[in-house]
Amino acid sequence: MTESAFAGGNVGVVTPARFTHLEPFVLKCGATLPGFELIYETYGELNSTATNAVLICHALSGHHHAAGVHQEGDEKPGWWNTCIGPGKPIDTNRFFVIALNNIGGCHGSTGPCSPKPDDSGMYGPDFPVVSVEDWVHSQARLADHLGVRTFAAVIGGSLGGMQALQWAMDYPDRVRNAIVIAAAPKLTAQNIAFNEIARHAITSDHQFAGGHYRESGINPDVGLALARMIGHVTYLSASGMGKRFGRQIKSGDPRAGADVEFQVQSYLRYQGQTFSRQFDANTYVLMTRALDLYDPAADFGDDLVAAVARAKADFLLISFTSDWRFPVERSEEIVHALLRGRKNVSHAIIDSEHGHDSFLLPLPRYLDVLGTYLRRVHAEIEADAT
Amino acid sequence: MTESAFAGGNVGVVTPARFTHLEPFVLKCGATLPGFELIYETYGELNSTATNAVLICHALSGHHHAAGVHQEGDEKPGWWNTCIGPGKPIDTNRFFVIALNNIGGCHGSTGPCSPKPDDSGMYGPDFPVVSVEDWVHSQARLADHLGVRTFAAVIGGSLGGMQALQWAMDYPDRVRNAIVIAAAPKLTAQNIAFNEIARHAITSDHQFAGGHYRESGINPDVGLALARMIGHVTYLSASGMGKRFGRQIKSGDPRAGADVEFQVQSYLRYQGQTFSRQFDANTYVLMTRALDLYDPAADFGDDLVAAVARAKADFLLISFTSDWRFPVERSEEIVHALLRGRKNVSHAIIDSEHGHDSFLLPLPRYLDVLGTYLRRVHAEIEADAT
Repeated sequence: MTESAFAGGNVGVVTPARFTHLEPFVLKCGATLPGFELIYETYGELNSTATNAVLICHALSGHHHAAGVHQEGDEKPGWWNTCIGPGKPIDTNRFFVIALNNIGGCHGSTGPCSPKPDDSGMYGPDFPVVSVEDWVHSQARLADHLGVRTFAAVIGGSLGGMQALQWAMDYPDRVRNAIVIAAAPKLTAQNIAFNEIARHAITSDHQFAGGHYRESGINPDVGLALARMIGHVTYLSASGMGKRFGRQIKSGDPRAGADVEFQVQSYLRYQGQTFSRQFDANTYVLMTRALDLYDPAADFGDDLVAAVARAKADFLLISFTSDWRFPVERSEEIVHALLRGRKNVSHAIIDSEHGHDSFLLPLPRYLDVLGTYLRRVHAEIEADAT
Repeated sequence: MTESAFAGGNVGVVTPARFTHLEPFVLKCGATLPGFELIYETYGELNSTATNAVLICHALSGHHHAAGVHQEGDEKPGWWNTCIGPGKPIDTNRFFVIALNNIGGCHGSTGPCSPKPDDSGMYGPDFPVVSVEDWVHSQARLADHLGVRTFAAVIGGSLGGMQALQWAMDYPDRVRNAIVIAAAPKLTAQNIAFNEIARHAITSDHQFAGGHYRESGINPDVGLALARMIGHVTYLSASGMGKRFGRQIKSGDPRAGADVEFQVQSYLRYQGQTFSRQFDANTYVLMTRALDLYDPAADFGDDLVAAVARAKADFLLISFTSDWRFPVERSEEIVHALLRGRKNVSHAIIDSEHGHDSFLLPLPRYLDVLGTYLRRVHAEIEADAT
């Protein structure tokens, strides 16, 4: 594999910050939060004209820690460290990059683990249904706070891509470029089915306790692990799994049978167990529901062209050939709607065997497309300033 | 949709029969059953030369009740009633059709719900690991009992197709035709992953009780339902689910969010609940393990051509365009091996939106291919007799 021209360096040690929004915040579902808190990180410096900000929107299980480390020696850097850093595609020498944890999350922003306004304990399962639109509006409040009127780019993969798309529709004057990666304009029945099974695994775990597990000092580990295992298989491709695991045996004699464990079994169980220790079950339910319900064309007579009409951004769509969760054709749906709405849109289809997970991986052509596009974005900002 | 030329009639009321094998039966895993019982049904009449017998092998959740009804007024006929009957593709006016429940099953054959030989209760989780090869050998004992030396055809879909393939290898002189539908020569890592998640859902349900649920008067309903939901999504295609369910709402307001239920959610939950009341959890674990471990080429240096060398049957492979569990290419693998082994083989690829489940459906072209092939098989038998 040829290395990307955007291999780059690391942002180093970063410290999360908090933004507190003290006014009531009305959610799409009709509920009102009396306020909210967002945990976020920034990388790079905001320029004097505040034109070089880039917003990173996270996917289902993501959070604010997108790049760098929290302390020297951290084993793992942020989840998108391959893309964010000096000289990397999202170049922190050029851009002021903001990453946050969304409302409803479990990494420090207001969510099911936060105390209820009346101090009667934590929200738990009573946290209101959140939507992509709610996230976008709360992110806009964070941008206000940080002095960012207009983003050079809003970028996200998967559920994060839906936020980037929604940003361009809801704040047409505040987004110069929307970079929508491995996304879809709405979920299919199959997508919803997999989410439903994951939620069902969680909520039918007797340790879920109707969502009040924390008060009881328990955790629906089994259900969360299953949810992750199901999700994980849909993030990988059949061919990618074949190359990585095939039918390799981890232990046991395939003739004897009973105690045989294939490598792929062991891998999935490990993924499930690790996740169940790190993620909140109520948040998982909220996030998958936001995915299921996202449908920007619904208020426009199911016409995506009408829905995107108000957008003014330039668009970069990126999709991956082996992604069967949000296949290339789902990005094409967005592309077609944007083209019919006479928007500037590019679509890069990246050959990859890594399925939906590709958007998190350092695939050279992917990094090159993203980096080259953003290099141009930066040049345009600079040109406008002179 | 044009109707098939093989729409045909029904076999009417059928009564299951039992075959008891009283001698020790050594399984591939090394364990020995002191004997076994098979529950089976037959449709049509064995001819005087015993050359018109057809064996039906069932898939993961199948059983012996393949056609007809058990009493007048039964709501549902046998699971393959669309294909078996007078004038149907597997024509009971021409063939003597045998369908059975495999060893390890939960519909009446020796399995986890059977008493242990030492009368210390039922087998439960201690039932030995069974394999496709074990099933084939036990089916051969049933054939002996019924006076069938040579089958006109052994037919099966999915896991049943693997049995048809194995019959042709293990009893080359007893199978004139092997009809292998929607099958694969072995599972991929992705196939194993889905089976693993289903098993994990069952065995990690606290009501599974290590497999001793029946003694405790409980049942792992939650785990079994999840296993079925996972399996079910893999039996359908994304496009088929899209056409059938799309994003139709069953109840609730998609803007409000919290109580929204999509049709596909409701459907899947119903499928899961129904299944959990009808199927035995230990059997589900056994059957999926047999699927995972099936790999006829393993004893031939992973060379499928060498594995099929001993077969003498003619082969009909049938696969379906939207089947992503066992895609067309998996049948092609078998076809290539058979062709390189200079076997007579035909492969029909049927256009269908119904995914893996297609093999159970009355798709006209599918019924026509199967019926026309078997009409020729019958003509050859008749010609040989004269």
